[in-house]
Amino acid sequence: MSEQLRVGMVGYAFMGAAHSVAWRTVNHAFDLPLPARMTVVCGRSTPAVSAAAAKLGWESYSTDWREVIARDDVDLIDICTPGDTHAEIALAALAAGKHVMCEKPLANTVAEAREMAVAAAAAQARGIRSMCGFNYRRVPAVALMRQMVAAGQIGTIRHVRAAYLQDWIVDPEFPLVWRLRKEVAGSGALGDIGAHIIDLTQYVTGQSIRSVSALTETFVKSRPLPAASSGLSASGDASARGEVTVDDAALFLARLDGGAVATYEATRFATGRKNGLRVELNGSLGSLVFEFERMNELQFYDATRPAAEQGFTRILVTEPDHPYMDAWWPPGHLIGYEHSFTHEMRDLIEAIATGADPAPSFSDALQVQLVLDAVSKSAESSLWTEVEPVFEPV
Amino acid sequence: MSEQLRVGMVGYAFMGAAHSVAWRTVNHAFDLPLPARMTVVCGRSTPAVSAAAAKLGWESYSTDWREVIARDDVDLIDICTPGDTHAEIALAALAAGKHVMCEKPLANTVAEAREMAVAAAAAQARGIRSMCGFNYRRVPAVALMRQMVAAGQIGTIRHVRAAYLQDWIVDPEFPLVWRLRKEVAGSGALGDIGAHIIDLTQYVTGQSIRSVSALTETFVKSRPLPAASSGLSASGDASARGEVTVDDAALFLARLDGGAVATYEATRFATGRKNGLRVELNGSLGSLVFEFERMNELQFYDATRPAAEQGFTRILVTEPDHPYMDAWWPPGHLIGYEHSFTHEMRDLIEAIATGADPAPSFSDALQVQLVLDAVSKSAESSLWTEVEPVFEPV
Amino acid sequence: MSEQLRVGMVGYAFMGAAHSVAWRTVNHAFDLPLPARMTVVCGRSTPAVSAAAAKLGWESYSTDWREVIARDDVDLIDICTPGDTHAEIALAALAAGKHVMCEKPLANTVAEAREMAVAAAAAQARGIRSMCGFNYRRVPAVALMRQMVAAGQIGTIRHVRAAYLQDWIVDPEFPLVWRLRKEVAGSGALGDIGAHIIDLTQYVTGQSIRSVSALTETFVKSRPLPAASSGLSASGDASARGEVTVDDAALFLARLDGGAVATYEATRFATGRKNGLRVELNGSLGSLVFEFERMNELQFYDATRPAAEQGFTRILVTEPDHPYMDAWWPPGHLIGYEHSFTHEMRDLIEAIATGADPAPSFSDALQVQLVLDAVSKSAESSLWTEVEPVFEPV
Amino acid sequence: MSEQLRVGMVGYAFMGAAHSVAWRTVNHAFDLPLPARMTVVCGRSTPAVSAAAAKLGWESYSTDWREVIARDDVDLIDICTPGDTHAEIALAALAAGKHVMCEKPLANTVAEAREMAVAAAAAQARGIRSMCGFNYRRVPAVALMRQMVAAGQIGTIRHVRAAYLQDWIVDPEFPLVWRLRKEVAGSGALGDIGAHIIDLTQYVTGQSIRSVSALTETFVKSRPLPAASSGLSASGDASARGEVTVDDAALFLARLDGGAVATYEATRFATGRKNGLRVELNGSLGSLVFEFERMNELQFYDATRPAAEQGFTRILVTEPDHPYMDAWWPPGHLIGYEHSFTHEMRDLIEAIATGADPAPSFSDALQVQLVLDAVSKSAESSLWTEVEPVFEPV
Repeated sequence: MSEQLRVGMVGYAFMGAAHSVAWRTVNHAFDLPLPARMTVVCGRSTPAVSAAAAKLGWESYSTDWREVIARDDVDLIDICTPGDTHAEIALAALAAGKHVMCEKPLANTVAEAREMAVAAAAAQARGIRSMCGFNYRRVPAVALMRQMVAAGQIGTIRHVRAAYLQDWIVDPEFPLVWRLRKEVAGSGALGDIGAHIIDLTQYVTGQSIRSVSALTETFVKSRPLPAASSGLSASGDASARGEVTVDDAALFLARLDGGAVATYEATRFATGRKNGLRVELNGSLGSLVFEFERMNELQFYDATRPAAEQGFTRILVTEPDHPYMDAWWPPGHLIGYEHSFTHEMRDLIEAIATGADPAPSFSDALQVQLVLDAVSKSAESSLWTEVEPVFEPV
Repeated sequence: MSEQLRVGMVGYAFMGAAHSVAWRTVNHAFDLPLPARMTVVCGRSTPAVSAAAAKLGWESYSTDWREVIARDDVDLIDICTPGDTHAEIALAALAAGKHVMCEKPLANTVAEAREMAVAAAAAQARGIRSMCGFNYRRVPAVALMRQMVAAGQIGTIRHVRAAYLQDWIVDPEFPLVWRLRKEVAGSGALGDIGAHIIDLTQYVTGQSIRSVSALTETFVKSRPLPAASSGLSASGDASARGEVTVDDAALFLARLDGGAVATYEATRFATGRKNGLRVELNGSLGSLVFEFERMNELQFYDATRPAAEQGFTRILVTEPDHPYMDAWWPPGHLIGYEHSFTHEMRDLIEAIATGADPAPSFSDALQVQLVLDAVSKSAESSLWTEVEPVFEPV
Repeated sequence: MSEQLRVGMVGYAFMGAAHSVAWRTVNHAFDLPLPARMTVVCGRSTPAVSAAAAKLGWESYSTDWREVIARDDVDLIDICTPGDTHAEIALAALAAGKHVMCEKPLANTVAEAREMAVAAAAAQARGIRSMCGFNYRRVPAVALMRQMVAAGQIGTIRHVRAAYLQDWIVDPEFPLVWRLRKEVAGSGALGDIGAHIIDLTQYVTGQSIRSVSALTETFVKSRPLPAASSGLSASGDASARGEVTVDDAALFLARLDGGAVATYEATRFATGRKNGLRVELNGSLGSLVFEFERMNELQFYDATRPAAEQGFTRILVTEPDHPYMDAWWPPGHLIGYEHSFTHEMRDLIEAIATGADPAPSFSDALQVQLVLDAVSKSAESSLWTEVEPVFEPV
Repeated sequence: MSEQLRVGMVGYAFMGAAHSVAWRTVNHAFDLPLPARMTVVCGRSTPAVSAAAAKLGWESYSTDWREVIARDDVDLIDICTPGDTHAEIALAALAAGKHVMCEKPLANTVAEAREMAVAAAAAQARGIRSMCGFNYRRVPAVALMRQMVAAGQIGTIRHVRAAYLQDWIVDPEFPLVWRLRKEVAGSGALGDIGAHIIDLTQYVTGQSIRSVSALTETFVKSRPLPAASSGLSASGDASARGEVTVDDAALFLARLDGGAVATYEATRFATGRKNGLRVELNGSLGSLVFEFERMNELQFYDATRPAAEQGFTRILVTEPDHPYMDAWWPPGHLIGYEHSFTHEMRDLIEAIATGADPAPSFSDALQVQLVLDAVSKSAESSLWTEVEPVFEPV
């Protein structure tokens, strides 16, 4: 094994930029057994990818992801492309003996996700690691939330209340970017942001979603074709319109296997909510609330305190004994969105270096995909729908 | 007609106490065409009701509600008893030509509620008024919310997000009070507090719930029989237990007839949420949020403002031009829970004095009952369920 | 002694209205040994005071406060007039053997306040009680704050940070109401609202202000003469202007006798702050924060908790074991501004009935006056100024 | 001129780490005319500085700052050492024709600061740029605050209310680190964090502090000598104690030259406030509030809005048209503390590249020093004290 973890990243847009920050930063923020090296970035267009390499700090660039996978000096493939290409790239990388970091959602279909999970499990036997990029797990307040639940601090969880609210397509003239086309994105709000709250709530509660009842809605049925886009912003081409083929919003009720009941909501039509991911857990001994727009805070209600002093405590998650925070600044100094990716890469590198399997695995991500699938089916059929198990029970 | 509105109130517990404050206060806070007079209060036990009359400020008391209805010097019957007795009392009062104020939920069954709505409509033709006590409509911030929606300030409503969260029965040893027994209360969290958010959201949006998919849950199946109770607090009798026959929590998705999609949640198991009624509306031009635990505030997001200045504005609803507020204190001085009842009685008196019909009518309350019924049926059947129309379409 | 406490109230504007609510409510909310009776209200103009009597619920009215004091059927004089009349009325009432409730500030000058305190002390020996109306002490969250400090829950207090911010005269065309004229009001923001935070902080900390350095400012030097006013709102007469003779804002640093250092700020020019009374205490073991615009909440930081769980806890002060709250509603149901007066009257009645001295006494109020005086002197001289002791040290 | 800006940084502790992140990041985040290069880092101990160079990403290291200044391949000296060394290093660097970035406070004494400002002004004539590191100016919400004030959105400023609250030395056994020793740090809370709110408030208001009345306090007079320290945390040596020679807290009133009155407070004894920098401005047309612990937010009260809709608007400062934010993530995705330094370096580089003078200049920083000096003198003398002008009036 190389004494560095040499990374080849495919895709360099929003997620690629975030991963690049993480790869550039992780060696400086943490003492790692295996420093990361930003070997090559890959994209389709030479001018664009060469500019991206320069801007984002990659040593070289390529326009052929197969070539990147084939390189001897690449140890890990980091997949930041739209969901329709994840399976092909990941399967090729695993076959070539490369570790794989794959952005979420793992794939656009259950079939692809299952194939990837099977391949990852097989690769694992050969010491090849894979991980899916549910970066919110690595927000310190979320990691703290999981620790507190696991330590029993809120007792038996009765309620999960999860919403991921955005508003970037409220304007009906916002163009038909790739995230609004089913053939590329797989689904709309559901897979893009709903996947995050599915993973996050299962992670923090330690419970899995067993069954769902869902509805999905597309409020604006057609939009101008896009002229140009970047991140979540874009400008439209007034002369031509296309059909929106994904959901604008997805809402579902769920029962979890530990007895909790839940509401989930993912939408791009919640005016004023920019990245409004919010999760509340109510347990028999207390409650926890996380809101991404105040990502450095966690609210904790401790029902075991004297009655007259009970209340929601706003924990500022910036203390050195909070998860990941000893790498950063003194208490009260905030970190930002991109730090979640830096933490993700730290955990990935630690796992690879120590021969452990990073989480969430492709199998974990397949399970999220199965929940997404149950939600889609329920929305179509108007029936309560069981979530299929990851592996068939024998 | 008398130059006073002489009130006979049946029941004097939590709601009776709140109504008594309102009746005592309304003449002083508002200039009314028809002052209220607290003529008689009615309960089953002489010692208890006589004490209540003294404490709450009623001129006389009775242990027979039929006698109260029969009195010549009573113009209005105010029903504050548990839901299983509403129909009988209200029907008798209407038949006797008395105006009726009835606490919510209107009844425990749709059949009863429909009978009451029919009787109220008939009485109305004879100048007899009736009203159901969804007092939250009279919280100034809620009334303002409705005004702003009606004025188009948030555009077309896309999302309704409503929750009414309490935690007073989280402790499994909390006793089996009447609110936990189906034969008295009709349902649990659903009818008690779910009814409030159904009415409130329909009121502020001007849209009706068309169909629902629901789940209900009873987390704690049996509880000690009660030794004594008052308001929402009670002590248990350790030696005997009984079965909880109502829901601890009710969750549902809904589609509204104006195109909005919605989540609703009513629970008594949300640890730390004491009276956590929260409603958020997202529209094409803005959003509005109300939280009862900060009942003097309304949050407004105005998407028509310059982009760099947009955000949720915390409106302190204490200005003289906010609904009802010119009756109270200078700006920044809060009002409390009981004021919603005083406002309710003001509106009722104004309607009676001017020969108008107060809202919400029994028919409006029947419609809420039909939504509750659809929720119950959906929870039982696990099927999406249409809300039955108030009157059969011809 | 009468079996009732028969009250004669002088003045019926903003404070008179608030006191009337309290006198009307206190018998119903609490089980009192000596019920209050609203015997007579007094004002200068017969039409106005007779209307006020009817509206506010007083049995009779008078236009002569001396006559009210002389009445045999009056036990207590409640003074709600502007500050320039407090001394004369209170002294006469005490001389006549009446209990006295006097609104704050106790007087417009130290000399008057001292005379009142001396008279009250003398009357006390004859069983006559007196109290000054610093009603904010009776906000449950403030009472809880004091309890927690007294119990040592925040340790040794290092910092007091107090502000009372309003904005009702930001508009330079707001008229010259009596509160802006020194001869009637004594001072501006300083005595009107600064007095409240002086009393409140000394009350909750148990420490007294020892010395101050102050500045005062009048931003708008002249204003239209008033046409009419009510509460804090008024309309102006465009044709004539007068000089503002009081401070718009008063700021001061202070040292307290327990070692704490403090900032105080009282202003009517803090745009957007309607009744923005805010007090923060930082102690060696924790902190407490109260904000009047969220008067049902108290924030508590407990530095003795595990480090990873520390944070400011928002205590919703609506539990039955919070001060005064067992008289009201279930948890999570708010109370309003006027309840502080009802609590005040309850404590006053309890003290009178049990032969105890109510707090704050006239002597306590004199001490506040001495602080106000030191602030005024410091602002004039630009020197640090010691607060004169209430009684000359021997 | 080199086509790169080759940086030599002196000091590599808390501020050095923060600056290193900025230098590593700035080329990637912004399109710069003159990319930064991390040429050399300087410290006293070879093992420590060589480790720091590796960890923080510097190409080389040195133990002699004079040698660093002398290097031909260094264009800018970035001074991150304690305040007692700033003057000597900065003067030498300017004399050698190097641009200088100097952390705040500019110096420990006015004399040193004045010498530096004179030297910087002289160097400026030769095209040499210098800047003082008041990084909070580059927090997007603070930059927005300044823009809005400058655009007249809050009118004439009446009140400034500034506090910088920390709690890291509340424990009396926290050791005597260099920040608590006058000979190294110059002053305590005053110069360390008070300097930030002096600069920040003058920057956002466009007004200068004219006179002050101050108090300072050292609550804990002696502490254990330090065994080791890092950032703001440290462990003590129980066997020996030393005297604390700086202030724990500094409070002052101020008058600004535009007519505003102000309170300022800097303390390390505000339990629960970790990095609690808070600034509120009240103007004739509105108010603005910034709190560093929620650094991605700005609150704006717009008194020109319709009365019923007024309130404090929580602007989430993450929109692409907010200052600096187009370099980062989509709306709703937060940035952290370190980004303020990256923005600072961007502005510095832009200024150098375009031949402009960056702000705050050494002269601006001298003015802050003069305010600090007036505060110290006032605290000693108990007198109101004028702030000396930066340059003697002719």
